[in-house]
Amino acid sequence: MSATGFRYGGGFAADLPAPIPRWAGLPRLNFVGGHNDPGQIPVEALAEAAGAVLRREGRSLAIYNLAQGPLGYEGLRDFVADKLRRHRGIACTRDDVMITSGSGQGIELVSRVMLSPGDTVLMEDLTYGGAITRHKRVGARVVGVEVDADGMRPEALSAALAALAGQGIRPKYIYTIPTIQNPTGSIMPLERRQRILAIAREHGVAIFEDECYADLIWSGAAPPALHALDPSQVIHIGSFSKSLAPALRLGYVVADWSVLSQLAACKNDGGTGALDQMVAAEYFSRHFDDHIAGLSKVLEAKLAVMVAAVEQEFGTAAELWTPKGGIFLWITLPDAVDVRKLVKPAAAAGLAFNPGPEWCCTPERAKSSLRLCFALPDEQQIRDGVATLARICREQTGIPAQSANVRHIA
Amino acid sequence: MSATGFRYGGGFAADLPAPIPRWAGLPRLNFVGGHNDPGQIPVEALAEAAGAVLRREGRSLAIYNLAQGPLGYEGLRDFVADKLRRHRGIACTRDDVMITSGSGQGIELVSRVMLSPGDTVLMEDLTYGGAITRHKRVGARVVGVEVDADGMRPEALSAALAALAGQGIRPKYIYTIPTIQNPTGSIMPLERRQRILAIAREHGVAIFEDECYADLIWSGAAPPALHALDPSQVIHIGSFSKSLAPALRLGYVVADWSVLSQLAACKNDGGTGALDQMVAAEYFSRHFDDHIAGLSKVLEAKLAVMVAAVEQEFGTAAELWTPKGGIFLWITLPDAVDVRKLVKPAAAAGLAFNPGPEWCCTPERAKSSLRLCFALPDEQQIRDGVATLARICREQTGIPAQSANVRHIA
Repeated sequence: MSATGFRYGGGFAADLPAPIPRWAGLPRLNFVGGHNDPGQIPVEALAEAAGAVLRREGRSLAIYNLAQGPLGYEGLRDFVADKLRRHRGIACTRDDVMITSGSGQGIELVSRVMLSPGDTVLMEDLTYGGAITRHKRVGARVVGVEVDADGMRPEALSAALAALAGQGIRPKYIYTIPTIQNPTGSIMPLERRQRILAIAREHGVAIFEDECYADLIWSGAAPPALHALDPSQVIHIGSFSKSLAPALRLGYVVADWSVLSQLAACKNDGGTGALDQMVAAEYFSRHFDDHIAGLSKVLEAKLAVMVAAVEQEFGTAAELWTPKGGIFLWITLPDAVDVRKLVKPAAAAGLAFNPGPEWCCTPERAKSSLRLCFALPDEQQIRDGVATLARICREQTGIPAQSANVRHIA
Repeated sequence: MSATGFRYGGGFAADLPAPIPRWAGLPRLNFVGGHNDPGQIPVEALAEAAGAVLRREGRSLAIYNLAQGPLGYEGLRDFVADKLRRHRGIACTRDDVMITSGSGQGIELVSRVMLSPGDTVLMEDLTYGGAITRHKRVGARVVGVEVDADGMRPEALSAALAALAGQGIRPKYIYTIPTIQNPTGSIMPLERRQRILAIAREHGVAIFEDECYADLIWSGAAPPALHALDPSQVIHIGSFSKSLAPALRLGYVVADWSVLSQLAACKNDGGTGALDQMVAAEYFSRHFDDHIAGLSKVLEAKLAVMVAAVEQEFGTAAELWTPKGGIFLWITLPDAVDVRKLVKPAAAAGLAFNPGPEWCCTPERAKSSLRLCFALPDEQQIRDGVATLARICREQTGIPAQSANVRHIA
């Protein structure tokens, strides 16, 4: 294009994020992002699904939303309703489900509909970085609630709500990831789910439940979703990024019609990509349980490789929050380590990880923690990556001094 | 779900659009929306394209953006660059192209990046209703510039810019649809394109060119895009909704890197749906010219049916802006007709049309005009729909009193 750059009057809007750099490819040792295992993409079955659904229903592509309305493709909404009934205890039909362009759009729509600038939101103190960013971007005040190995602590939630009530503040909602918590990988037990719901109900506060990773559980089962326990109090979202593929942009929201009808009114994108929806529905309607069983086995094996590598390279310097499913491992190093200082030297070595402060409502508290995703790299890359990270950490901080057995806290 | 509705604290955000109603299907006589002809969806070829591209590249679905970065699938960006070079005179490569989730997302991103509340934007006085809505939603002041049968009038543009300069205002950009203008269907001649560019340059104002319909031209050719004539001054967007299918959510932006890198930073959707991108690229890389030739022929024939029906039913009461391509016909009725009064009785008869005021920066001026889309309905529905509309118009306004030959103004 023009060597002189763009000529225009008056400049850009004032509040823009930094422009993107030219794309330079993924890092060689890539432990960030919700990527999946490339070997687990069912290429042949997806090709067959695409052929079948296109030959059967392809003509409807001529019409916005396949002439099925703004909630999305009926075949996919039927599949989601069936899956949630069988696996998450949720009684719903296609009319309670809206397909979104990834669960990120779900977070965007719920925060858009529920929040005004200055509103307060409660979140697990350790939580998904993208949700923290989104809530801050809409001008919400984010208050973190302590987690333990079973997820959000009811006592901490009670205390936070009481403290806010003392200031005359009622939060708009509690954002929680009860099933494969991000980043700690925990599953909230049933009794705690009931306590969390009771506390929220007592304070008249809604719950925003993110079950983005709930399809990937090593044991194959978890207590019912919060939404299953009280549909009138809980907005529920989920994703196909982790169960199938993140380049497909597919997630969903399940909520009472009074909420869903408002979310749909704000989803002004002309619909979610139809082929992504049609092919995912066609494939998963036939193959979901088998696919999940196979994928979970592969992911659990990769986690084992990563845990062994961390134990070997970091020894007792690393506390592992061994996850009960999902695609990431949360590691806490000694207080003397500030992981933010490792980011640049790691990048120089072709390695990327999530520094803990980005996954924490009170960033300083997680300065010695980090998140490593294990779905994308192969076993050799996992071993190389963890060794590289340990070497960089030792060079920068003197830790780990040596390797030994590792303490487990979860 | 719960019969008692959603229980929550504090209500929704203050500035929400009305919630959607339950989906009741499309109107029987549907002349609104950018739908396409269902018979023109190349179902078998798309099924073959899906199979081929999935078997070749399907594993990369495991990685966000197919590991090809935030601008989108390289195969589709290559196709767009090639198409724009061959058909629109634009010299660009994949690195100048960003795929968007429909051209609506393009409008959203450009307005987000360029505008702050209170900024002024110039548009054709008759223009795409969605763009008017979007610009108002971001708090921009919209100033309409008169159009004639060749598009935006340079004299009117000059006068508008001079008047604004007199108030110390420099607009952020001129939003224009030079090729198959929406709603008038005109193609701006080359000499006028050059004058518009010169006037904008003189005032230091950027141009935002929407070529959403430029693939569908009866004669097969148009003067080069404004972007082709000065890449440093013009942001260019286009769409696959009209050339292929609107349920696929695919559009694109071409702009100088200083702009594109900023647009990409604001496209925080995790990428556009990968299967939509991959299948469209695979099919169009082989079949674009043939597909467009066939589709244009079908659309031109449908337009002829609609024009004949309007002439028969409305006679001299209707002025037709006969389009040079695209999917819609703009009709102006006598001043005594306020088309807004026809909307409800038409809906009761199962008929939907676009009332002119929604397609005009100064709504009152277009109160006697309406837009009829002709790609979706079949020939019988076109005849029935126009007859129904004429009957309702006559019942409400006494016009048309009788049918006769129609005056053409374009």
